[in-house]
Amino acid sequence: MEVYFDNSSTTKPYTAVIDEVVFGLKEFYGNPSSLHNLGLKSEKKLRECREVIGKTINAEENEIYFNAGGSEGNNSVLKGILKPGSHLVTTPFEHASILNTIKGLETSGVKVTFLKLDKNGKIDLEHLKNSITKETVLVSIMHVNNEIGIIQDLKSISEIIRENSNRAKFHVDAVQSYGKLHIDVKKINIDFLTVSAHKFHGPKGVGFIYIKKPNVLLPLIEGGAQEFGLRAGTQNIAGIMGLKTAANIVNDNIDENYQKVLDIKNKFIEKLKDIKDIRINSLPTDEFSPYILNVSFRGVRGEVLLHFLEESGIYVSTGSACSSKERAKIGGSYVLKCLGLSADEISGGIRFSFSDDNKIEEVDYVIQTLDKGLKFLRRIKK
Amino acid sequence: MEVYFDNSSTTKPYTAVIDEVVFGLKEFYGNPSSLHNLGLKSEKKLRECREVIGKTINAEENEIYFNAGGSEGNNSVLKGILKPGSHLVTTPFEHASILNTIKGLETSGVKVTFLKLDKNGKIDLEHLKNSITKETVLVSIMHVNNEIGIIQDLKSISEIIRENSNRAKFHVDAVQSYGKLHIDVKKINIDFLTVSAHKFHGPKGVGFIYIKKPNVLLPLIEGGAQEFGLRAGTQNIAGIMGLKTAANIVNDNIDENYQKVLDIKNKFIEKLKDIKDIRINSLPTDEFSPYILNVSFRGVRGEVLLHFLEESGIYVSTGSACSSKERAKIGGSYVLKCLGLSADEISGGIRFSFSDDNKIEEVDYVIQTLDKGLKFLRRIKK
Ligand SMILES: Cc1ncc(COP(=O)(O)O)c(C=O)c1O
Ligand SMILES: Cc1ncc(COP(=O)(O)O)c(C=O)c1O
Repeated sequence: MEVYFDNSSTTKPYTAVIDEVVFGLKEFYGNPSSLHNLGLKSEKKLRECREVIGKTINAEENEIYFNAGGSEGNNSVLKGILKPGSHLVTTPFEHASILNTIKGLETSGVKVTFLKLDKNGKIDLEHLKNSITKETVLVSIMHVNNEIGIIQDLKSISEIIRENSNRAKFHVDAVQSYGKLHIDVKKINIDFLTVSAHKFHGPKGVGFIYIKKPNVLLPLIEGGAQEFGLRAGTQNIAGIMGLKTAANIVNDNIDENYQKVLDIKNKFIEKLKDIKDIRINSLPTDEFSPYILNVSFRGVRGEVLLHFLEESGIYVSTGSACSSKERAKIGGSYVLKCLGLSADEISGGIRFSFSDDNKIEEVDYVIQTLDKGLKFLRRIKK
Repeated sequence: MEVYFDNSSTTKPYTAVIDEVVFGLKEFYGNPSSLHNLGLKSEKKLRECREVIGKTINAEENEIYFNAGGSEGNNSVLKGILKPGSHLVTTPFEHASILNTIKGLETSGVKVTFLKLDKNGKIDLEHLKNSITKETVLVSIMHVNNEIGIIQDLKSISEIIRENSNRAKFHVDAVQSYGKLHIDVKKINIDFLTVSAHKFHGPKGVGFIYIKKPNVLLPLIEGGAQEFGLRAGTQNIAGIMGLKTAANIVNDNIDENYQKVLDIKNKFIEKLKDIKDIRINSLPTDEFSPYILNVSFRGVRGEVLLHFLEESGIYVSTGSACSSKERAKIGGSYVLKCLGLSADEISGGIRFSFSDDNKIEEVDYVIQTLDKGLKFLRRIKK
């Protein structure tokens, strides 16, 4: 049996997505910047994709800017706004594409406030309010944390920003929430939103930023006038078409999928009651995304347990995929560290992450295997 | 009849490329940064792609860094090296992704020398030699100009750089030459080389930079440790596999394809003898790429001729696709301007660009249509 519980690292593209990519590669190979019919045909298709995607978050067609994924999107927003002397408010457990970008910006004179988190990972709204100064140009907050699944209250955050500044913009890293939780950029009043296709059964290497009109960003990639002059380079039309198809499917099934993975997560948590010495880092409340279940298994190293599970065809993760190798070096997840977990709990953290591809029966097999693995690994450790 | 003579804007992906992309989307969806088997499988495939591509330019596997295409590559090299006070040597007719990037860098204190060109577009090697100073950190030269096809003598350029500096690095924008002309990065001694897949029947939105060991670049996109820490973001494996397949096909057929398009270009030039008031901007000598034929038709506007040809199913370009809309505003190609052409010749410039997909018979149809179009357009202009 194979169980893929690593959907927050990446997902398997839908068959319809693959078909659409093929359609794009075959039929829309014209350069959208070319003046002839073949170019116009591609440009029209791009516009259609922008419109379809715009609708999924209540944005206009010309507020959707295609790019190569979440890391590029996050870099674009931070580097496209922050200058020496400007002030950024964010959290200490953002994705590496935010945190590592900040490191460089700090040395060039950008000031940063990292918000306090409660024990579940919710940001301290009072701290947010008190952090906003006249120099604050950006507040960048992830909607759903990729390791533990805590959901931030975007509406309250946005209101606090607007009440305390008429300058600060609001950026949301929605890579782990788009297509999973409802997002209305107008209602929440978001300035910038980052999305990546491969997290919801789209192709890798393609994503988009929503940029609220009339905001702009200094382009990260300069050159031609593609993407309204904000991102140069011949567009990846086939990939964008795949992104659009995936976006349509997940958004059309958003509530049904939510319930499906919630049942999986709830069953998983229920069954975990029989397993000793654990800490559930993603509670079964609606403050957490049902797509992510992070559990600390005390007395085992996460990597070791991961490889044990893998022997039985179960794929999980110890944290964010793209920091998993770094993590191996530092001995634990920076996200779990932020929550004040013990060294043992940090080292024993495993992220199970679900998608609509999963079946509820898979939980039984995973729990059985976990039980076997933990008994074995904890015994040999003694 | 349909004739696609706009292959320098973009090409139609090979069927084998499309199949490989599908294979990638289906079989290699694991995140290469994941610690489990599915991740390792993807990572292994990435390594294989690096190796295959490395071989095509005589580079090592770990000197190939995947990205989202030529514009990103060019931006990465310039922004990854140049700092306020550093000196860049380049040409005045580089691609927009170089020239527009330079504009921003100049305002931040980078000094730039634009080399003199002869009437064919060859750079003045004496000027190159005299331009190199102690502050010169980068010489960035396109191998083949995308509008007129002039080929620069990379070997001589490299030698001049090495003789006059032990600091300056050599960057080659090979977007229009990779897979068309032989490139040996070791023999020529190149530090950085930019390539984009969609110019040789690969997918759009994927490319690579060759970076000679032990050179590094400050990353444009920061975050995870992907691409040896030089370019964050989950890799577009399916696209990279398509790039690899396209690279293999074009490099395996490089000499045969060269001869094929050369025959097309030569026949085209031969037939152009019957057409009056033209200027051939891409001579039939081996100083020019056979893939590009730029012709100025005096007394007509390039855009108008382009649309006339399009009515007959013939797709061409007035210059670089990604500056074609800008060009419409400024009334002509900056590349042709650099060569000292008259306003009439600049305004009447058309680029025919070929690929191995084309057939020599297509030339007859294009010449007939051109003849008809010119007679009509030149008459109504009087
Ligand atoms: C010489 C040259 N460099 C760079 C590029 C940019 O490549 P891409 O469209 O992949 O960004 C192009 C093509 O548009 C080009 O012709
Ligand atoms: C919250 C979050 N932001 C950004 C990213 C980066 O996305 P990508 O891999 O498309 O660059 C990820 C995934 O790795 C993520 O989980």
